[in-house]
Amino acid sequence: MSRKLTAEFLGTLWLVLGGCGSAVLAGAFPDYGIGLLGISFAFGLTVLTMAYAIGHVSGCHLNPAVTIGLVAGGRFPAGEAVPYIIVQVLGAIAAAGILYVIASGKPGFELGGFAANGYGDHSLGKFSLQSGLVCEVVMTFFFLLIILGSTHGKAPAGFAPIAIGLALTLIHLISIPVTQTSVNPARSTGPALFVGGWALQQLWLFWVAPIVGAVVAGILSRTLWPDDTAQIEGR
Amino acid sequence: MSRKLTAEFLGTLWLVLGGCGSAVLAGAFPDYGIGLLGISFAFGLTVLTMAYAIGHVSGCHLNPAVTIGLVAGGRFPAGEAVPYIIVQVLGAIAAAGILYVIASGKPGFELGGFAANGYGDHSLGKFSLQSGLVCEVVMTFFFLLIILGSTHGKAPAGFAPIAIGLALTLIHLISIPVTQTSVNPARSTGPALFVGGWALQQLWLFWVAPIVGAVVAGILSRTLWPDDTAQIEGR
Amino acid sequence: MSRKLTAEFLGTLWLVLGGCGSAVLAGAFPDYGIGLLGISFAFGLTVLTMAYAIGHVSGCHLNPAVTIGLVAGGRFPAGEAVPYIIVQVLGAIAAAGILYVIASGKPGFELGGFAANGYGDHSLGKFSLQSGLVCEVVMTFFFLLIILGSTHGKAPAGFAPIAIGLALTLIHLISIPVTQTSVNPARSTGPALFVGGWALQQLWLFWVAPIVGAVVAGILSRTLWPDDTAQIEGR
Amino acid sequence: MSRKLTAEFLGTLWLVLGGCGSAVLAGAFPDYGIGLLGISFAFGLTVLTMAYAIGHVSGCHLNPAVTIGLVAGGRFPAGEAVPYIIVQVLGAIAAAGILYVIASGKPGFELGGFAANGYGDHSLGKFSLQSGLVCEVVMTFFFLLIILGSTHGKAPAGFAPIAIGLALTLIHLISIPVTQTSVNPARSTGPALFVGGWALQQLWLFWVAPIVGAVVAGILSRTLWPDDTAQIEGR
Repeated sequence: MSRKLTAEFLGTLWLVLGGCGSAVLAGAFPDYGIGLLGISFAFGLTVLTMAYAIGHVSGCHLNPAVTIGLVAGGRFPAGEAVPYIIVQVLGAIAAAGILYVIASGKPGFELGGFAANGYGDHSLGKFSLQSGLVCEVVMTFFFLLIILGSTHGKAPAGFAPIAIGLALTLIHLISIPVTQTSVNPARSTGPALFVGGWALQQLWLFWVAPIVGAVVAGILSRTLWPDDTAQIEGR
Repeated sequence: MSRKLTAEFLGTLWLVLGGCGSAVLAGAFPDYGIGLLGISFAFGLTVLTMAYAIGHVSGCHLNPAVTIGLVAGGRFPAGEAVPYIIVQVLGAIAAAGILYVIASGKPGFELGGFAANGYGDHSLGKFSLQSGLVCEVVMTFFFLLIILGSTHGKAPAGFAPIAIGLALTLIHLISIPVTQTSVNPARSTGPALFVGGWALQQLWLFWVAPIVGAVVAGILSRTLWPDDTAQIEGR
Repeated sequence: MSRKLTAEFLGTLWLVLGGCGSAVLAGAFPDYGIGLLGISFAFGLTVLTMAYAIGHVSGCHLNPAVTIGLVAGGRFPAGEAVPYIIVQVLGAIAAAGILYVIASGKPGFELGGFAANGYGDHSLGKFSLQSGLVCEVVMTFFFLLIILGSTHGKAPAGFAPIAIGLALTLIHLISIPVTQTSVNPARSTGPALFVGGWALQQLWLFWVAPIVGAVVAGILSRTLWPDDTAQIEGR
Repeated sequence: MSRKLTAEFLGTLWLVLGGCGSAVLAGAFPDYGIGLLGISFAFGLTVLTMAYAIGHVSGCHLNPAVTIGLVAGGRFPAGEAVPYIIVQVLGAIAAAGILYVIASGKPGFELGGFAANGYGDHSLGKFSLQSGLVCEVVMTFFFLLIILGSTHGKAPAGFAPIAIGLALTLIHLISIPVTQTSVNPARSTGPALFVGGWALQQLWLFWVAPIVGAVVAGILSRTLWPDDTAQIEGR
């Protein structure tokens, strides 16, 4: 079990360091910055790369909503969910810490939003709580649907990390302006602890909405793929 | 059959929500927007991700022109085409509705073009009806050629979703300025119902041109790959 | 043989229509244009998509330099090279024609460079003849090295179209400012016929340099992979 | 052995010519330049393309830190490391020379930073030595983790080049503003020899930090994947 938890810790650390790091360090770099498109690729590639590296160790969830959605879909034992979620959150916090060390070594550094998720006045595009809620539920629903479908026993073997990673890229291409995109409570928690204040007050949404979307997808998957044989462990 | 239709409904919903959603929410975001390049990736990745998730359920057409082109090429039973097309259109309408709910939760929201397809004054680059017609026919022809070829029994197994998804990205890289790119009557219908007026008046082109291109490709495929064995269901 | 030649004709048409089309129609679109990055992806994706679609028919060369390089490397019969090259050039000319029809349907259309290749005053970045020559030779050399290596019998099966397509993307990311990137005499010939004048006068470079680079790679490949078994036909 | 060394020489030449070349020639091209996003893709695609082309010859390290990390992880014989590293550095220098020939053929050419790595005043974003050190160690650690994991015997066969190449893209998306991104001592050495002065004075960091990160990952990998069977040679 400790190999799996080490893998989930390192993987989630990579997701948050890579995704939020690209946003904080390179997103708005003058003239040549990577913009929302580059940030979207960064988030997706953290998952794509780690899924090939540690998918065969832990399944590479890197996300409490994914773990819970897989439990809901009958693909992951409920008893292992809590330790998975704990190390995912710890990995995300460690990532935010490392990012802080790197980012702060610049003259005139200011913390700013630090890639934390938010709604209303703290949404990049000033989208309302309702928009953020709908968006996070729907995006996580489809994220889990793609995870559950592409790791199904009848899907082509070996390609799931590409589908899942690029799904996360796609989700960011759509929804960064709405909530800075979470679909992952651990990813939201790391930066929020450094930003404090509003980021912590709004954090509940980024636990509730992704989990709701994931559970609905998990339940639906039992109907869509009734003949499933769990493949997630060895994808 | 209902599993297949559910899959096509959800898949087309994702295509329109992801593709049009990225355009409406993030395409023109000030300074850091994803631009035509990001929108092109978003459309393509909706298909790539869904093809791995539900390709083994429904074949993942997500597009009436694809369904009709596959019938023309002898790869899909004609009798199942009508229900497929109906749920594709319903999925596209549902996507436009969800996108409206999210997009409208922003101060000063205006519907604008809402990613609807158009020609002449309603083409992004003011391209004429003739340009739009030629472009949509040719683009859909090559889209189907790639679908039919990459799902052929002699093509490498498992890679078709990458080829097909990135073909849709490529098609958008070329043709968004001409018609905002359709090659998919369902994708055109969803936003047009919300925009009304000109979008509904011009909608005929985005049913006729993609279907013509798809049928020509389907017929040609019988000559190009005479020894075909239908592989589309299980790609 | 006619199936192979039809495939090469259509494939090269797609390469030039997609690559040059993205440049002409969307490259410099105001504010949201795809820029050199998007054009680079477009060129690469034409090859990636077609290689999955018609690789199992014709080998998907789409490029006289590729055909000649494969002959030099002992991977393709010399006797079939001339008809391949003829239909590749015809496909490129047809593509330029279709692109002209689409692009001209816009108020105030001007032909401009029409994505033709050039050096000196006609290089996008005003690079000299010498720079253009070195660049085209070196880029085509590595392009062929990647083609020959990734289609080798010991390389992972099925992945060559990804490696080759994205190699063309990479080559464009490096060298569009130098020559607008050729590495493909057919791709250079199509637009040059429409632009005339300087484009035709400079066309010789984009036949000579790619072929030189390709032949050197072909010869070297016999040393690098002495145990080769031709796999190119069925990649 | 000479086939392997030729492959490593050519591969590292391609990495530096493609990555640094895209930065020097196309990165800051007026209006349409590829920016940090395009440069990130260029670096990653050099590795992705070469890994399919020569992975079956030499393992496609292209990087002294990778070679040393693989030795630390028990995946590569220590006795072959020195010749590998020598030809990698020679390939990088050759690449910088070819790039100089091409880039200098432009009116008003100035060498500028020539894509050399740096910290403090010579970091693109003026990040401190400490930030650069932490960033390079952490980025190389995760790069090696992905290499070691995705080439493991239990990982899906054939996909490692995609995971590794896109990991390098991701690393650049995060860290170009910090150090212009090295994670590869050979890549740092080539341009530094042409820039001289500060670039040579700061070069030590880009040997020390990547190697430290790589060795830590190599050691950790023995715990994470205790049942490993070396697969790197034939990936």
